[in-house]
Amino acid sequence: MSLDLESVTDPATYVGQSALTTVAIGELHFETGGYLPNVELAYETWGTLNKTKTNAILIQHALTGDSHVASSQLAPEAGWWEYLVGPGKPIDTNKWFVIATNMVGGCYGSTGPSSLDEHNRPYGSRFPFVTIRDAVNAEAKLADILGIERFHAVLGGSMGGGRALEWAAMYPDRVSGVGVIACGGQSTAEQIAFAQAQVEAIRLDPNFKGGDYYGGPAPIQGLGIARRIAHINYRSEPELNVRFGRKFQGNENPLGSPVAARQGRYQVESYLNYKAQDLAGRFDANSYIALTEALMSHDVGRGRGGQAAAVAKISATPFIAAVNSDRLYFPEQSYQLAADFGPHTPVHLIDSPIGHDGFLTDLHQVADEMIKTLGL
Amino acid sequence: MSLDLESVTDPATYVGQSALTTVAIGELHFETGGYLPNVELAYETWGTLNKTKTNAILIQHALTGDSHVASSQLAPEAGWWEYLVGPGKPIDTNKWFVIATNMVGGCYGSTGPSSLDEHNRPYGSRFPFVTIRDAVNAEAKLADILGIERFHAVLGGSMGGGRALEWAAMYPDRVSGVGVIACGGQSTAEQIAFAQAQVEAIRLDPNFKGGDYYGGPAPIQGLGIARRIAHINYRSEPELNVRFGRKFQGNENPLGSPVAARQGRYQVESYLNYKAQDLAGRFDANSYIALTEALMSHDVGRGRGGQAAAVAKISATPFIAAVNSDRLYFPEQSYQLAADFGPHTPVHLIDSPIGHDGFLTDLHQVADEMIKTLGL
Repeated sequence: MSLDLESVTDPATYVGQSALTTVAIGELHFETGGYLPNVELAYETWGTLNKTKTNAILIQHALTGDSHVASSQLAPEAGWWEYLVGPGKPIDTNKWFVIATNMVGGCYGSTGPSSLDEHNRPYGSRFPFVTIRDAVNAEAKLADILGIERFHAVLGGSMGGGRALEWAAMYPDRVSGVGVIACGGQSTAEQIAFAQAQVEAIRLDPNFKGGDYYGGPAPIQGLGIARRIAHINYRSEPELNVRFGRKFQGNENPLGSPVAARQGRYQVESYLNYKAQDLAGRFDANSYIALTEALMSHDVGRGRGGQAAAVAKISATPFIAAVNSDRLYFPEQSYQLAADFGPHTPVHLIDSPIGHDGFLTDLHQVADEMIKTLGL
Repeated sequence: MSLDLESVTDPATYVGQSALTTVAIGELHFETGGYLPNVELAYETWGTLNKTKTNAILIQHALTGDSHVASSQLAPEAGWWEYLVGPGKPIDTNKWFVIATNMVGGCYGSTGPSSLDEHNRPYGSRFPFVTIRDAVNAEAKLADILGIERFHAVLGGSMGGGRALEWAAMYPDRVSGVGVIACGGQSTAEQIAFAQAQVEAIRLDPNFKGGDYYGGPAPIQGLGIARRIAHINYRSEPELNVRFGRKFQGNENPLGSPVAARQGRYQVESYLNYKAQDLAGRFDANSYIALTEALMSHDVGRGRGGQAAAVAKISATPFIAAVNSDRLYFPEQSYQLAADFGPHTPVHLIDSPIGHDGFLTDLHQVADEMIKTLGL
């Protein structure tokens, strides 16, 4: 049941978007001690920045997401919040200038482990440990370059919600509204636990070679296992059961082998193989580890006297949303975050049977409240 | 963060119990085509089989469990249902003869992949694919040898519940009462999905060598990842968060490394490392795969016209219990099974915050109902 994909990883093969702009933001001192002398951030934009530069909205992607929030003339394929961003849409790009970066440490154009150092060698294992706060610091440098002193709103879902929250906590004077969707104020013990298993699976892949695998075969089996663990948690048990149940894949028979090394698969296994293979074809394993570690580091209260104290210092207007069937970023965590913002801060519940990924598919359900709350 | 354990696997090193009796049950034709000419089953007993052999109760272990349900003179250490089985306990061994087998395919004394074939070579990759029904067939042969025509009750939790249910379905004339605890009538898409990730992790371990690793280093890293995935699902999110939260392990600092390959750990990571290491020291990876595959195969309705039709043919009195916080064997699945037994079949809910493992720790809550229902 190994992945079919034979992938030899060349640095920067993951970037395929035509609408990316890449800007050098200079050096970056990372929170846990890493340092890079030259960092680039890649981003996409929609709409026009007004002369006073007061109409900017920053949208933050999730773990394996990218800057392609919505389609544009340069990149006409649909984005992951296609229904949310565009002319006449809830975030109306006739009015707002929307910008989405690719997170530092990733593999979609911003500097990451697969990028080349000053000696033209990919960083690999030498790439700095990245936190959510490092990512925000990098984006603040980009905002400086673009002349954006203050965002009308910063919002995102899942890890993107954590990045938005950190923006509001690190730069309270630069964020008027913050949208934290399907994400709490900190990664929980369970999220850390599942993340550890994923990182360990990648490291176990013989092709990983401690992170210095570029030029050779990529550790796609390990990355595929990580993706399986993650993806199951992004969906819900009832959804998987309704879609797949115990059905066999096509004419395959998982009970057709006299020994354990069977070929036949259950349909849900084939589905997850596809998800694993899809990610292995579009994402770098080192970047997966880097961003997973960043997500594990997510804790708005760290070094700030705890979550309540940290949130109390945020001046941005909060918009908190959660998916009612989410079993990875439980709504309970969003309620706790909302409570820390103040006793009358609502949590806007997205009603979806599919689990966490409902933040991608069904945010439109609470778009009106988001427009009203954030003044969009 | 790799496991410290250095383990060279010799066949049969996993068996350390002193109270085991091992019986040759002869040949076994396995459901998916495998065949073994000589199979042994290891088991423990408590109490005395009466002359009419009508006081026997069969208790079935879970995935990585064993036959040591309770302490005895020969094996005084506490068992996994210590509070349930013994003189004067809910299943009173002054009255009942209790027997617990180790499942075929496992590594606790019954024939499994680490056992030696007729040429004194461990089976390894050649060991047959095992289903729950194969395990029951093997146990029926053991019951024949012991002269037990009919069990007063067969019961178990988790995979043990599936084995009990299959006993009642395969041998309706040999089971008077069946206890299915924290297990539905079939493994669900989600259970299959998490199981696949676990099996893949073991197979990815370079030491696995296709299953023929005996005599060399054991694939304990892969087995450890499998255990992490499983164990998280055996517990509950609130329990992990209350016990560990985001605490760092001792003086370690997971945010203390300038590169991704950090040494410092979160406390929950240390906990799961321990769980992984513990299992790697006591369980064989091939057996883990064999029994996981058996569990994936669990479907009482397979080849019997579906679950409702299969359950309708069971004559044993059912006792169904579930843990209210179980997020792997959801109570919903137990309710479905109970409904198939008849409209007035109750589900006895164990109230525990810890999740699936509540079937081990808190079955005493519903012991009175079990005694009454099964006439113990």
